[in-house]
Amino acid sequence: MNSSLCFLLAAKRAELTELQRLAQSIALARSTAALVHELQRERGLSNLSVLQASLGQAPLEAQLQQQTQGTDQWVEQWLLESAALINAPSPHAAQLLSRVAYALQGLDALALLRSRVAAKALGTHSLSADYARLIASLLAVVFEAADRASAPELLRPLVALFNLMQGKEWAGQERAAGAALFASAQVQAHEQAHLIDLIEAQQRCLEVFESFASAALLQFWQERQRLQPLGERSRLRRLLLQAPAGGALEPTQSGAWFACCSQCMDEMRPVEDQLTQFLVDQAGACMALVAAEIEQLEQRQSGNWGAGGGLGSDTQRGSGFFDAASAAPPTLQSAPTGLAGGLEKSVLDLVQEQGQRLQAAAAEIETLRASLNERKLIERAKGLLMAHQQLDEPAAHKTLRELAMNQNKRMVDVAEAVLSMSHLLAPRR
Amino acid sequence: MNSSLCFLLAAKRAELTELQRLAQSIALARSTAALVHELQRERGLSNLSVLQASLGQAPLEAQLQQQTQGTDQWVEQWLLESAALINAPSPHAAQLLSRVAYALQGLDALALLRSRVAAKALGTHSLSADYARLIASLLAVVFEAADRASAPELLRPLVALFNLMQGKEWAGQERAAGAALFASAQVQAHEQAHLIDLIEAQQRCLEVFESFASAALLQFWQERQRLQPLGERSRLRRLLLQAPAGGALEPTQSGAWFACCSQCMDEMRPVEDQLTQFLVDQAGACMALVAAEIEQLEQRQSGNWGAGGGLGSDTQRGSGFFDAASAAPPTLQSAPTGLAGGLEKSVLDLVQEQGQRLQAAAAEIETLRASLNERKLIERAKGLLMAHQQLDEPAAHKTLRELAMNQNKRMVDVAEAVLSMSHLLAPRR
Repeated sequence: MNSSLCFLLAAKRAELTELQRLAQSIALARSTAALVHELQRERGLSNLSVLQASLGQAPLEAQLQQQTQGTDQWVEQWLLESAALINAPSPHAAQLLSRVAYALQGLDALALLRSRVAAKALGTHSLSADYARLIASLLAVVFEAADRASAPELLRPLVALFNLMQGKEWAGQERAAGAALFASAQVQAHEQAHLIDLIEAQQRCLEVFESFASAALLQFWQERQRLQPLGERSRLRRLLLQAPAGGALEPTQSGAWFACCSQCMDEMRPVEDQLTQFLVDQAGACMALVAAEIEQLEQRQSGNWGAGGGLGSDTQRGSGFFDAASAAPPTLQSAPTGLAGGLEKSVLDLVQEQGQRLQAAAAEIETLRASLNERKLIERAKGLLMAHQQLDEPAAHKTLRELAMNQNKRMVDVAEAVLSMSHLLAPRR
Repeated sequence: MNSSLCFLLAAKRAELTELQRLAQSIALARSTAALVHELQRERGLSNLSVLQASLGQAPLEAQLQQQTQGTDQWVEQWLLESAALINAPSPHAAQLLSRVAYALQGLDALALLRSRVAAKALGTHSLSADYARLIASLLAVVFEAADRASAPELLRPLVALFNLMQGKEWAGQERAAGAALFASAQVQAHEQAHLIDLIEAQQRCLEVFESFASAALLQFWQERQRLQPLGERSRLRRLLLQAPAGGALEPTQSGAWFACCSQCMDEMRPVEDQLTQFLVDQAGACMALVAAEIEQLEQRQSGNWGAGGGLGSDTQRGSGFFDAASAAPPTLQSAPTGLAGGLEKSVLDLVQEQGQRLQAAAAEIETLRASLNERKLIERAKGLLMAHQQLDEPAAHKTLRELAMNQNKRMVDVAEAVLSMSHLLAPRR
């Protein structure tokens, strides 16, 4: 019996270790959200500066310099948080660490990007694409943290967080694309199509966010939405989208568009903040619960050993294992109470409860993960296209997007179709 | 750049740690296969002994005693292997440890089961059910080891192993049910239905096994199948299944049935053995490969530091990150060579290759896991029925089986239907 108790304890300790790792990922996700926000502001100011210069206005050098300093503070913080992952690498962490390594390459290249912007060597299109690539590498870290979360009570808010951040990033790309379109003074059909893509992607992400957010967070989100200039943004979106191809746009609207998009994004930031704070608290609460359960089991173990009676009589030992079939088993609804009252329960009861609780958690996680799969399918289809067609990532993305537009399907449906043909698309030798 | 290299190294080390844990699970799976075989023989002999006594023949006490000693040797071995898991618990291991804890409860109860058999306190039906419950708790350990495997080259043979073991266990239950039916001298419709279930489950498992086995193993399996008395088994199966309900059966056929079923199972054992040996070798090879990659990265890291040049000039640093978009990216087919030639490659190349390799592995694992999902769906549906209807496990299984028979559907389809109604079946308060 004691030896089952040892394994039960080891299982609980493994759970605690996993929660500690997850708490580290959550701390990193919190810093990532802050850093991405700063990078989005920096991209916005850089863009605006280039646009204003093109309209003959003074560039925003002082503001931009202040912003890069703000960004750099969060880069430092992010480097600290990510270093903590190295010191305690855990199995299953290979993918997260590999994402961090890639994001670091991006942050390493930030100085170069800034110097190119300062030298006016980049147009708004390349500039936006480079920042988007860097931000995508950071978002992938949050995605990975969510993908490996083993506790449903933490996976749920992590999925909400990733989708809020991704939705906000689509909003940032919409801001850049719309501002450039206004500034170009002329409507272009493919730019309109790109804007529609970004708006739809944004809406899908925010829908997922809303369906995964807690009631309290949802209320906070709705309050902040009232502060967003959504009416103004709709009006300007109509100007951009409803004009016929080749029609004229008023370049000075670029500033108004930029300001209202920025305000929308800024109002999303406190929601991210509240969500990441909730995640940190929730992770702490989960760890405390498991730690208390471990303590209870340890007491029971030492109690058993102290009592000396130890093994019990042979006719009694293990009778529960086979007789349990005839008694009512521990039901799932008793599981949430955890090991409370554990001292009165038999080890067999504890083992069965633990098994059922873990199984229920695994099942819930599998269901929750379905929402992460859409992104994975698209990433995988892109990988296949890159390998087979020798495309780079943006070109593979564009191919999928055009396939989707031509067939009037969603990206994820096209991705599934591509993957289903993978045997035809095997890498060329 | 160095710092990306640190994360790459940490990712590789995490991969190695995970492989080491997996190698432990594989060692445990190997002992489990051997132990289950002994328990199946013990169940067979116990059953035969009870049946022979009921036919007025001498029970097989000496043989049975010899067998229990053989079983006990493997129990010892299994306890040793499982203890190794406790000493190095890893995150994500909670479920595996919890399964081991449950199996230990079963092994703990084995002495009680044997004493009941010796006291003739159990009929063949209860005796078979008790052994089946114990064996199921051990099979769950192998299933869990497969479910958490993060390397596709190990997951594939683990899925094959689990299905081979599960198929053999269904064969063992068919042996017991058929022997009891012959001995009862009279055909019973519900026993016939039970036999058909067992035969179908067996075939499904062996089909999955065959589709996941390597070419070499498949050949070995086909050779061993030629040694199985499949013709004799078919003939006896027809006697059991084609007789009308209520018709007479010849009790003395029980022995012939038993012998030919036993021989079929014994011929499966060397295949299990070859497969587990392959798994052990494959795990060793995977670990050696990753260890060599780690060594290469470590050399590169110390080389970089030694060269002193360190950070490089600012205009060069990170240019690859943004420019990669215009160059052809590292393609998936270059991934299998791993980090060979890593010294000539840039850190960015290494980071991207590692990311793509991990992503490809994760995608392959997800596909492979689909074959494990059938079992999970059935287990989850059973859990739901147990919680809602206050059923025990065998009753929940029977409910699902009857639903499937009545609707002429597969168990897994019925399980999916049950789960899709889970909101209606929420646990009663």
